[in-house]
Amino acid sequence: MPLNEDELYMQMALDQARKALGEGEMPVGAVVVCGGRVVAKAHNQVERLRDATAHAEILALTAAMAHLNAKYLPDCTLYVTLEPCSMCSGALYWGKVGRLVYGAADEQRGYAHLHCPLHPKTEVVSGVLEQDARKLIQQFFKERRK
Amino acid sequence: MPLNEDELYMQMALDQARKALGEGEMPVGAVVVCGGRVVAKAHNQVERLRDATAHAEILALTAAMAHLNAKYLPDCTLYVTLEPCSMCSGALYWGKVGRLVYGAADEQRGYAHLHCPLHPKTEVVSGVLEQDARKLIQQFFKERRK
Repeated sequence: MPLNEDELYMQMALDQARKALGEGEMPVGAVVVCGGRVVAKAHNQVERLRDATAHAEILALTAAMAHLNAKYLPDCTLYVTLEPCSMCSGALYWGKVGRLVYGAADEQRGYAHLHCPLHPKTEVVSGVLEQDARKLIQQFFKERRK
Repeated sequence: MPLNEDELYMQMALDQARKALGEGEMPVGAVVVCGGRVVAKAHNQVERLRDATAHAEILALTAAMAHLNAKYLPDCTLYVTLEPCSMCSGALYWGKVGRLVYGAADEQRGYAHLHCPLHPKTEVVSGVLEQDARKLIQQFFKERRK
């Protein structure tokens, strides 16, 4: 079956997550799409930047805001391979991001599991290519245990 | 009565908030202190940077991590004039910040009011020079209504 649009963009986010894995980072990737155009891509860079706030979502949203010269992103969709944490859901909130599409749920630190807010106008789709996202994270922890 | 140490550093954070007010930004300021030394100061720059994530706390924490070349800040105290939001409490969580001292409570968007988590080891002190912080925010909204 061919991939739908959300799955295609999630594939790009998964490519970003694979890049993170190759660099020894927790494999999470994000892509921001606006009007059918990719305006930002990022992967987790906490280790490289030695900055605990350098999550894929924060980097992608900041890059998108800089690219569009706009502090609000109501016409954008953020694709991210893992459910955002409370910090990243806060960034989505302040950025008034129109749509959030994520892959795997994060039962420990995900915003939905912690009941942290998104903007009331943000539409949410979850579970897109979640198996792929989950496998990358399992691979990361397996390699770390070695 | 002379100011105690927390009040002295909060004065510095209030100076940052005044700088924000002078630039037409929501007046919130933050200071990071480590071992008796100020390692970062920042004020809200959402308008100037056109970046909805450019809260004083995020900018101060990122600057402190860069300055100390450390992704965790267990020996640092973050002073901030207003109760952090869910995004900023998430940044404090990931940065394992040892101590948080804030001024005024934020009943609408504050992390404590939203029940968003801090790191379990983060010590919290609230209400330090809260009247000064609150007055600056009231002044901001009064000027905006004009």
